[in-house]
Amino acid sequence: MRAALDAAAAAGAAGEVPVGAVVVLDGRIIATAANAPRALHDPTAHAEMLAIRAAAAAIGDDRLKACDLWVTLEPCAMCAGAIAHARIARLYYGASDAKGGAVEHGPRLFSQSTVHHRPEIFPGIGEGEAAGLLKAFFAERR
Amino acid sequence: MRAALDAAAAAGAAGEVPVGAVVVLDGRIIATAANAPRALHDPTAHAEMLAIRAAAAAIGDDRLKACDLWVTLEPCAMCAGAIAHARIARLYYGASDAKGGAVEHGPRLFSQSTVHHRPEIFPGIGEGEAAGLLKAFFAERR
Repeated sequence: MRAALDAAAAAGAAGEVPVGAVVVLDGRIIATAANAPRALHDPTAHAEMLAIRAAAAAIGDDRLKACDLWVTLEPCAMCAGAIAHARIARLYYGASDAKGGAVEHGPRLFSQSTVHHRPEIFPGIGEGEAAGLLKAFFAERR
Repeated sequence: MRAALDAAAAAGAAGEVPVGAVVVLDGRIIATAANAPRALHDPTAHAEMLAIRAAAAAIGDDRLKACDLWVTLEPCAMCAGAIAHARIARLYYGASDAKGGAVEHGPRLFSQSTVHHRPEIFPGIGEGEAAGLLKAFFAERR
C-alpha cells in the first residue's frame, strides 16, 4: 500500500484527485498507476484501471487471476466492474468513499447476484493517510 | 447503430464477443470500436470503453457532454460507470443483457442515488440483429 499511497500523492501533485493503485503478483509489484483522467483526456483513467491494464499487458493475459490490487480509495462502479472482469484475487483498499464507492456503498457491486467474480476484500488498509491526501486536495481547491 | 453493429460483427469474426460501439458528436461519428479484451490483453477493452477513450482523445477532453454513445449490448457495470464519468448525453443500446447488464439488470447503475450522471437512455435499438450476432457467436462455441 506504500507504493499506492506514493502514486496517490503524485497524482495530487499533478492536479488529479489523489488516488493510486498497484497490482501485485507473487509478492512483486507488476504495475503502479496514479489517477490521471484530466492529463490523459480519458474519463476511464482511474488509478485502478490504469494499473489493471498495465498488469494485463505485462503478463499478456486479460485475466489477472493470481494478482492482487491495492488501491488507496474504495473503487467506483467502473473500477469494481474492471476488477471483476480481470478476476483479481484480492482487493485491498484504503479510504471508503460514500459518494462514489461501489464496494460498500451505492450499487455494492460484489454483493450483486449477477457479478461474475468477487475478490477477497480487505478495506481500511492505510485509510488514514489515503483519506488525508484526499481531504487536503479538496480543501485546497475549495 | 449500423456502424456499431458492423463493429460487433467484426469483433465476432476476430473471435471476440460480438459487441460494437460508436460515439456521435453533432451527428458525426467521432469514434468506433469493437470489443477486444482477448486481442488487446486488456480486461477493460469493451467496445464502449474503447469508443469512449477514443472519443475523449479525439476532442481532447475527459468529458463527453455533448456526445451520444450507441452500443449493441446493454452496458455492464464497468461501462455504465465509464458512461457516467464521461457525462455521455444519450445512451442508445441494442440487446438487453440479463447476465452482465447493469442498466436494466443487476446493479441498475443509473438508478442508484449515488450515480454522478445519468444519460437519457434508449434501449432496444437494433436489438434483433445485435442479439442475433451474440446468439450465433455463442452457439458456434458450444
